[in-house]
Amino acid sequence: MNPARDPLGGPRGFIVAIGGAVDTARGAAILRRFVSLCGGSDGSIAIVPTASLLADTGAHYEAVFRALGVGEARTVPFASRHDGECVDLLDALAQATGIFLTGGEQLRLTTTLGGTSAARLLRHLNAEGVPVAGTSAGASYLSEHMIAAGRGGGTPRVGSVSLAPGLGLTNRVVIDQHFRQRDRLGRLLAAVALNPFVVGTGLDEDTAVFIGPDEVMEVVGTKAVTIVDGSGLELASLGTARPRALVSLIGARVHVLVDGGTFDLRTGRASPGSGTQGGPTHIGRPVAADA
Amino acid sequence: MNPARDPLGGPRGFIVAIGGAVDTARGAAILRRFVSLCGGSDGSIAIVPTASLLADTGAHYEAVFRALGVGEARTVPFASRHDGECVDLLDALAQATGIFLTGGEQLRLTTTLGGTSAARLLRHLNAEGVPVAGTSAGASYLSEHMIAAGRGGGTPRVGSVSLAPGLGLTNRVVIDQHFRQRDRLGRLLAAVALNPFVVGTGLDEDTAVFIGPDEVMEVVGTKAVTIVDGSGLELASLGTARPRALVSLIGARVHVLVDGGTFDLRTGRASPGSGTQGGPTHIGRPVAADA
Repeated sequence: MNPARDPLGGPRGFIVAIGGAVDTARGAAILRRFVSLCGGSDGSIAIVPTASLLADTGAHYEAVFRALGVGEARTVPFASRHDGECVDLLDALAQATGIFLTGGEQLRLTTTLGGTSAARLLRHLNAEGVPVAGTSAGASYLSEHMIAAGRGGGTPRVGSVSLAPGLGLTNRVVIDQHFRQRDRLGRLLAAVALNPFVVGTGLDEDTAVFIGPDEVMEVVGTKAVTIVDGSGLELASLGTARPRALVSLIGARVHVLVDGGTFDLRTGRASPGSGTQGGPTHIGRPVAADA
Repeated sequence: MNPARDPLGGPRGFIVAIGGAVDTARGAAILRRFVSLCGGSDGSIAIVPTASLLADTGAHYEAVFRALGVGEARTVPFASRHDGECVDLLDALAQATGIFLTGGEQLRLTTTLGGTSAARLLRHLNAEGVPVAGTSAGASYLSEHMIAAGRGGGTPRVGSVSLAPGLGLTNRVVIDQHFRQRDRLGRLLAAVALNPFVVGTGLDEDTAVFIGPDEVMEVVGTKAVTIVDGSGLELASLGTARPRALVSLIGARVHVLVDGGTFDLRTGRASPGSGTQGGPTHIGRPVAADA
């Protein structure tokens, strides 16, 4: 079962992953674009604050989205697994033209929503064309393989990253956030080394990827996105390395993309696009991290 | 994308997960049934020994399957990521009417085959109707969410299980093997607690589940399968627990099924079936593990 594939064959909705600390005021390029995808002044955004432990997270984003001109913005507060079966909350979710998952702690999302009607509805809505966005923990949760925890630092080690099943809107990427701000390249390399099928996507703060139904990711924001493409890996030593050992990794392709840059998940092609932040940032050479 | 869904709508092949130490001689109920699914004397089984570090693993299973009456059995030795693109090996795989993944170390499977043409072909063949079996490490690898490592013991702890992306023939189960022989209930509970969407499936040695295209799992073998169904969980504390803390888990449903027992992944219904090992073993009461 792919939850995010429309059985009727129509295009799924955009998947929008934001690296945290999103600009909600001055430029707000990411949120403006998301509001536009949701229908602008005709749109209705449901805010799911489940990842957050703060009481006013939902109200904060309601005000932000209203200021950006969306028709309606309201919080749908799934706080427990019981809430995930609550008809009123599910109805509120079903009426939205866009969904926004706040930051906080991603394991709160998986443990609260996993296996509930709310998670099934989120997948169904995205499959039917409704855009779903998440920031920080909310971004990590969007994909099938979610980074649950890990250690900072640039060098991949055995056990330096811990995965959990996420919402599953796509299984092609594994998402990390606050990426360069928290020095997370090592754990993203380790995640890709676990199974080079997944494309590592490291999102800096106030920077997002918009993953279209055509499986092209476009970067929007003020900083950068680091892509780790392991499809051409010659070797990853995790299968033979000892616990906590440094990991050998030969032949990963790494791209650093800024605003307007794109990465095609089907072809593996990266492009600097016609971004406003300057010239090409494509780095095509393999990166090796030897033990 | 669900790799294991046939775009033409036909039924996918059986997924057969075996808990290790499979009987290859006397009774061989599991392997006999797999041989029958592969076409018996008209069938051709491809053996993929990638998980194993022993040189004779492939030849061993060739002899086993031939003795059980399959038409042909041959080893397809993907030993490196380069091999995963080798046309001769891919051709040999494509001609099989059944695939068998040996035991060993599951991270050797993901790091060697992940993102290669071989893994894509395995998913494609299963989607087209070819049965795919794995034992021990090979069983863990079959599903989208794979237990890569973990600690023994009955009590779930934060960090007691480490997941990685697997082959992805199904995303509904997470599989553990050598289950009661290595006391792995705690790490299976922890895996389900990460996201109760997945159904924990703990396979004892010489015991298997045959997952049909109708998403019903049937138990075959001399010992038992432990199912952890978290869909009705009231609480899992991983979202708020500290590192290495004991995990609270309230409301997991646990079933212990023996030969002939079934579990329906769509409805969550367990049945003792008409097995040869005795009466009903369904345990319907919630299991709580408090910190």
